[in-house]
Amino acid sequence: MPESTNLRLRLPLLCIILEVILIILFGTLVEYNHDTDAKLWNKGINQNATRHDYENEFYYRYPSFQDVHVMIFVGFGFLMTFLQRYGFSSVGFNFLIAAFSLQWATLMQGFVHGLHHGKIHVGVTSMINADFCTGSVLISFGAVLGKTSPVQLLVMAIFEVTLFAVNEFILLSVLGANDAGGSMTIHTFGAYFGLMVTRVLYRPNLDKSKHRNSSVYHSDLFAMIGTIYLWMFWPSFNSAITNYGDPQHRTAMNTYYSLASCTLATFAFSALVSPEGKLDMVHIQNAALAGGVAVGTAGEMMLTAFGSMIVGFLAGTISVLGYKYLTPILESKLKIQDTCGIHNLHGMPGVLGAVVGAITSAMASKEVYGNGLHRVFADATDDKWDPKSRGGFQAVSLAVTLAMALLGGLVTGFILKLPIYGSPPDTHCFEDELYWEIPGEEEGHNELKEVASPSEEEKLSS
Amino acid sequence: MPESTNLRLRLPLLCIILEVILIILFGTLVEYNHDTDAKLWNKGINQNATRHDYENEFYYRYPSFQDVHVMIFVGFGFLMTFLQRYGFSSVGFNFLIAAFSLQWATLMQGFVHGLHHGKIHVGVTSMINADFCTGSVLISFGAVLGKTSPVQLLVMAIFEVTLFAVNEFILLSVLGANDAGGSMTIHTFGAYFGLMVTRVLYRPNLDKSKHRNSSVYHSDLFAMIGTIYLWMFWPSFNSAITNYGDPQHRTAMNTYYSLASCTLATFAFSALVSPEGKLDMVHIQNAALAGGVAVGTAGEMMLTAFGSMIVGFLAGTISVLGYKYLTPILESKLKIQDTCGIHNLHGMPGVLGAVVGAITSAMASKEVYGNGLHRVFADATDDKWDPKSRGGFQAVSLAVTLAMALLGGLVTGFILKLPIYGSPPDTHCFEDELYWEIPGEEEGHNELKEVASPSEEEKLSS
Amino acid sequence: MPESTNLRLRLPLLCIILEVILIILFGTLVEYNHDTDAKLWNKGINQNATRHDYENEFYYRYPSFQDVHVMIFVGFGFLMTFLQRYGFSSVGFNFLIAAFSLQWATLMQGFVHGLHHGKIHVGVTSMINADFCTGSVLISFGAVLGKTSPVQLLVMAIFEVTLFAVNEFILLSVLGANDAGGSMTIHTFGAYFGLMVTRVLYRPNLDKSKHRNSSVYHSDLFAMIGTIYLWMFWPSFNSAITNYGDPQHRTAMNTYYSLASCTLATFAFSALVSPEGKLDMVHIQNAALAGGVAVGTAGEMMLTAFGSMIVGFLAGTISVLGYKYLTPILESKLKIQDTCGIHNLHGMPGVLGAVVGAITSAMASKEVYGNGLHRVFADATDDKWDPKSRGGFQAVSLAVTLAMALLGGLVTGFILKLPIYGSPPDTHCFEDELYWEIPGEEEGHNELKEVASPSEEEKLSS
Repeated sequence: MPESTNLRLRLPLLCIILEVILIILFGTLVEYNHDTDAKLWNKGINQNATRHDYENEFYYRYPSFQDVHVMIFVGFGFLMTFLQRYGFSSVGFNFLIAAFSLQWATLMQGFVHGLHHGKIHVGVTSMINADFCTGSVLISFGAVLGKTSPVQLLVMAIFEVTLFAVNEFILLSVLGANDAGGSMTIHTFGAYFGLMVTRVLYRPNLDKSKHRNSSVYHSDLFAMIGTIYLWMFWPSFNSAITNYGDPQHRTAMNTYYSLASCTLATFAFSALVSPEGKLDMVHIQNAALAGGVAVGTAGEMMLTAFGSMIVGFLAGTISVLGYKYLTPILESKLKIQDTCGIHNLHGMPGVLGAVVGAITSAMASKEVYGNGLHRVFADATDDKWDPKSRGGFQAVSLAVTLAMALLGGLVTGFILKLPIYGSPPDTHCFEDELYWEIPGEEEGHNELKEVASPSEEEKLSS
Repeated sequence: MPESTNLRLRLPLLCIILEVILIILFGTLVEYNHDTDAKLWNKGINQNATRHDYENEFYYRYPSFQDVHVMIFVGFGFLMTFLQRYGFSSVGFNFLIAAFSLQWATLMQGFVHGLHHGKIHVGVTSMINADFCTGSVLISFGAVLGKTSPVQLLVMAIFEVTLFAVNEFILLSVLGANDAGGSMTIHTFGAYFGLMVTRVLYRPNLDKSKHRNSSVYHSDLFAMIGTIYLWMFWPSFNSAITNYGDPQHRTAMNTYYSLASCTLATFAFSALVSPEGKLDMVHIQNAALAGGVAVGTAGEMMLTAFGSMIVGFLAGTISVLGYKYLTPILESKLKIQDTCGIHNLHGMPGVLGAVVGAITSAMASKEVYGNGLHRVFADATDDKWDPKSRGGFQAVSLAVTLAMALLGGLVTGFILKLPIYGSPPDTHCFEDELYWEIPGEEEGHNELKEVASPSEEEKLSS
Repeated sequence: MPESTNLRLRLPLLCIILEVILIILFGTLVEYNHDTDAKLWNKGINQNATRHDYENEFYYRYPSFQDVHVMIFVGFGFLMTFLQRYGFSSVGFNFLIAAFSLQWATLMQGFVHGLHHGKIHVGVTSMINADFCTGSVLISFGAVLGKTSPVQLLVMAIFEVTLFAVNEFILLSVLGANDAGGSMTIHTFGAYFGLMVTRVLYRPNLDKSKHRNSSVYHSDLFAMIGTIYLWMFWPSFNSAITNYGDPQHRTAMNTYYSLASCTLATFAFSALVSPEGKLDMVHIQNAALAGGVAVGTAGEMMLTAFGSMIVGFLAGTISVLGYKYLTPILESKLKIQDTCGIHNLHGMPGVLGAVVGAITSAMASKEVYGNGLHRVFADATDDKWDPKSRGGFQAVSLAVTLAMALLGGLVTGFILKLPIYGSPPDTHCFEDELYWEIPGEEEGHNELKEVASPSEEEKLSS
């Protein structure tokens, strides 16, 4: 076991310092918002209150929040357990960096999106937004999976969350972009950030660990738990922070149809690109989800089920083709070692989603949206609103996101290259044993029938 | 590997053609409904609106929808992973045919339940109904599990979804039946349809694959994931499309009590029928769910917790006894090879549920239901309403369902018998390797300590 | 196989008798409540109704109920699958005793919390409360895991549920305590009850089974499913029965922050206490959850995110240290064999949660809570309310809970010691094979390529 990967001091120190900083900042900056504060929420009571408890944002948002929460912790966590000897790290590091990121994101998003009298207000919407930002970090985690220490991952999260918040602010507040499901802010940003990081951290001798960079039968089944949860709850993800009523309802449904269509495309192309016509678990686990990514921007618009299904079909197709043909080229030509193939699941489908969002915005009209127009496009409050211009700003938002992600990933990659984080050597990538106590082998199964004495049993198990 | 099972052209072609047809039909026929359309939902706004966003059907139905969705994709998918070498197919084919069926079902149910000016209106309720229809197909899948190619399964789904919609229309619209949780429409229909299909597809030499037609330790644990999710969310399944308020609330609770009681019966009879008094995972995984099936019709009625528990207890009992004594007879005498034992989980408990529903309907009265009577029995709008007649129609509904299922399964079975679908040979049933890329074996666990050189390690792993 | 563990008669008899008693008692005592009864809920209808369906408690509580339900059946069930040869029993017995306990708890809690004209009224709130009581039994199950027969566990549940209901009544109704998330009623009670039971059932020769009292690689991944679900849904657990509106919203958020902070503490101290700086799955699986336990009482109060994070950090820290240093001492000195380490996950964090609750109560004021004060502290209806006194009663509640748990566990332990329950011998603890049909070994994976004849294959598999 290489001594340099012993994290006994580094990991505890970093975790404790970060959490202490978080606690201090929360103590000085964070307050309950109107719907979580006992005094504020109950202000009108005993007078002729027109507000009722069922109007608390909790009842509109909390079920969606829980679905998103499952995607972040079970979805992303188990999706990455496909590696044969990296299940503890996949679920465990996912858990650690998500728990950190959601706290840090609350602060960063609170800062840039505007303080209230110097305070950050929190409630279920901020919880969803923090989980969203965390999702972006976990996407990047997919690119460097198996090749980074938990200390490195935490440092990556510090920078990525911060830049995420800045990029999100530019898109939503400066450019007025629509991106409720985060095709740009979450998927495109997380993917290209992660790809740039893994490019900078390029390991020429990674093939020394290639025998561990693959799945086994049961690890693929664990990964399917992640896939299916992501697939099922993606409608909640895309609709979690849209406006109440028809936008939330419509977004969930558009996403549902996009994913269903995407799944058929995925199975079709997975079999087609195999000489023996066999399905590949890598495609099913990942490409079938691309449909959710690709309607992340347009999902809240009047995209129709028809439009959603076309987008989903395209997303599944490019994702499978990406896994089959593009990923090997990225590795051999561009030196981008993308463990989970996030370029195919989040990168290209994210860009597709941004483009679809720009087009759908540009086609919006009062005829189609009626009085609901400004509930989707916040600035469409008067008749002078120009959908073409809105579409243009959406396209600019994509460009900004790509630039922020690539630049941010570049800088962060170099910071992560410092030889101080206990990163695994090339010979021990994709291996839990570096950072985890690993249990021994299983006992023989039929020991009871053999009436072995305890001492014999212990010999057998040793 | 038999050449005839190579699906390289057949599967992609079928998937792509089906999805293109779906997209065209959705484009011409499907529209947002009142609660998902931006224009329609916001019509009253700016005037003195009496409708509020919290009245959107999304907030009444979407949490239930998500629970149902989990049952369809995780519940059914993982329940069938109990087979030792069929986990990829169980979860994967479940995923494929569910993703297809929910789209096809939206169209078929939309057609027969009535178009609005030539259009099918979609929203969360249609999503739940589509998932319900999909559930029926997945029940049938359980009967033929391991013995069919994905092409065959898609063809089966095309026919079964269509017939499901017709049968559902006859029951709900013509006969005015109550069946919110689908004891008849979903469970009885899916079970007897599937049993008839597997009867027609009878394989006299299936014992050539019998060594694979069983579980291993970890595959049984994966299957328990499916079981537990089905069990937990069944209250949401049965209550998902009942009327708002007391019926939805009551249905969930009745189902909860039925399942709890059923579980105790299952454990009791599983131990009792074993000579050594040992529990059998097959019973626990399946029979404990029969209580949910058996209150699928009566759950929304004033069945009481007491009644629900009795029904649940009966359902668990007949289900265990079915697995132990009836399934072997069905196979040896009637040539029905029922891989998952759907007759015990969905068939008999579904019929029981229909009978319980008929009796409970016949006992309904204004005294018990008060003003809520017509919210459960839609035609009970005046004093002339006769519960006895309602009970009679419920019984007729069961007969119609059985006839439709058996006849439909017969025809579909013969269609599936054509030798063009890449069906597995008798020697290779219950085997993922026919249709999936299978990963290699796991590396030795303690390699790190052995300081093996990479070349040696690769020798070991080969 | 020891004959004395054959449960063929004992288990069925007990299950059937218990369920018959339950059914009879439900038949005579249980009624639908106002929100589940067709007549009562629809009383005002057709007149000028001021009540609407969206005000039915179902819509406020059911999503939380489902999350709690997942914690009880998947969370607790899979958390205990970490043992290499006890997965069937962990999930299966969890399933059995939970299904029994939730029925029994409905009756016991209904009795002591007050009958309505001689009847127990049930609805979603009683379902949540029954699940809560069940959680307490499952905590105790963790202490005796692997060392008890299902018959013993059912007997334990009978007594523990009864005492739980009495203790809960004393706390909530007599002492007027706040304990929405059950730091005292659920966690402290369940933990010390279970610890006392396992103390009485002390096995001096348990090390004969110690080779099975550990995990293997995949069993730790199954356990992580339990952990992550418990972690994600704990905000729903703590907020499930608080008042509507701001208290429910605030509780969920406080719990979210406590858990995030706790997770960082857990990773920090897990690495710190390991000589090689390696993370231990036992800590991650358990200690990361202590933050949810520790805000079970104060979560609904104005604890702030800041306070929640401090409490979570402390809870994670003491929990890891408990696993590392205290558990071995408890076993060697006090003869407490605590399989899952419930003292570290539920015992100490539960006491911490009670203390935090007492302090936070004592600091409550009209300035901070405004008109919301009496919605958290039910007796704070006039200006004479004294928070100090409330804090004192909270402390008394903890003392009562500890006394009830220890005394109840003592008596129950001696009852469970009777040699009539088919308890496993010391040599066969932590072993599924005693009570379950165990499937055979897996077939060779690459058999297809070897073109083995069926007869040869069967030789291989035998």
